Amino acid sequence: MRFTSEQRLDDGVLERGFTLGEIPGILWTPASASAPAPLILMGHPGGLGRMYPRLAARARHSAAEGYAAATIELPGSGDRPRIAAVDEARADLRRALEASEPVADEIVDRLVLPLVDTAVPEWRAALDALVALPEIGGPAGYAGGPISIGVRLAVVEPRISAAVLFAGSFVPRAIFEEARQVTIPLLVLLQWDDEGNDRQMALDLFDAFASKEKTLHANMGGHTGVPQHEGDDGNRFFARHLK
Amino acid sequence: MRFTSEQRLDDGVLERGFTLGEIPGILWTPASASAPAPLILMGHPGGLGRMYPRLAARARHSAAEGYAAATIELPGSGDRPRIAAVDEARADLRRALEASEPVADEIVDRLVLPLVDTAVPEWRAALDALVALPEIGGPAGYAGGPISIGVRLAVVEPRISAAVLFAGSFVPRAIFEEARQVTIPLLVLLQWDDEGNDRQMALDLFDAFASKEKTLHANMGGHTGVPQHEGDDGNRFFARHLK
Repeated sequence: MRFTSEQRLDDGVLERGFTLGEIPGILWTPASASAPAPLILMGHPGGLGRMYPRLAARARHSAAEGYAAATIELPGSGDRPRIAAVDEARADLRRALEASEPVADEIVDRLVLPLVDTAVPEWRAALDALVALPEIGGPAGYAGGPISIGVRLAVVEPRISAAVLFAGSFVPRAIFEEARQVTIPLLVLLQWDDEGNDRQMALDLFDAFASKEKTLHANMGGHTGVPQHEGDDGNRFFARHLK
Repeated sequence: MRFTSEQRLDDGVLERGFTLGEIPGILWTPASASAPAPLILMGHPGGLGRMYPRLAARARHSAAEGYAAATIELPGSGDRPRIAAVDEARADLRRALEASEPVADEIVDRLVLPLVDTAVPEWRAALDALVALPEIGGPAGYAGGPISIGVRLAVVEPRISAAVLFAGSFVPRAIFEEARQVTIPLLVLLQWDDEGNDRQMALDLFDAFASKEKTLHANMGGHTGVPQHEGDDGNRFFARHLK
């Protein structure tokens, strides 16, 4: 991991850009950290530049409560090389949606599974590098989407101790099966009136998790309208499980 | 309203028993109240004696955040005269459940609607008496079940500004229709794995509310296993809407 930029934000949070091999990422650490801060990996749908304002806001909200937060670019997004097979699946998806046809499982598989297969080892490598920093320590959490990456991480990465998952559509059947192996504490956020979201599928996925401690928070407000108080709820969820 | 008992609990909360006509009730007020405290009416399934430990715990949790909390006995429960028609409907319900038969709508109507029709004016009369006390002021909230009473109160009582509703089964169709008229902020609690609960019906009811601001919190733990952190979430919900 190589730091490529560093700035102190007006609330004192330290924001550092980094690269991990060819993968760009951002790390935010709290203004005053007397002890190593627990780390929250922040998932997003891809495109760090486009997502930056929302990610920085989430990271600063977490940093105010003493968490470090980090994110990396997804494979095929932002400045990273496109993945032809995924782009093709995305085009097929768009055609199906525009024709108001049901989206075939095989399109969802081609769209999501290569991303999960590539991204999850990258997130784990980022975790290796990040927890080696002296300012970061303790158990880690994952917060965000795509939910399929969160599910796979929760299954394969023992350092992820709790996760806030953002419900989204287009979850492959294979990920549903993996969800039955998830046992860490979960907070699942569902935007109830999100037209681009398959509500029943999100409820079924919530039901599938094997976690003894799982909570679903459903809110109004559309895909990007997650209410402010859910950020506070997420911090308190991590406070119960990461500290 | 006539106070019948008074004790100071170990956390300083003042607990007073009262009667409103023939209806017994309990009022809890915060240890130190410099200003009139907003009031939370606490719903319960009936039987103040049996429910006392849980109600007192909820009330003290709210009082610690500056709320007054009050409850009254339901019609036909505890020391109040039985209601023959409701008892009969309850026996019919039990027979249907024991025979694993579907519960007919008309049984649910006979079980719930007379309770709602009688209880809601009683809760409103209690609200009249309670807000006349100098230590109580501002907007009021409702928290608890049966959800049918909460729905009716939210529709007919303009002083109820926000409600935390506990999802339960056996909601009459008429109450579903009333739910479409509810516009106050709602937090709906659903115990996801409660075997005595009709999960799909609870989700449909949540969907039916017209409130722009509504949140569903689903948790594991069975009917009486609502996690501790939901008490905190409830307080914060009321802090956003009653203060």
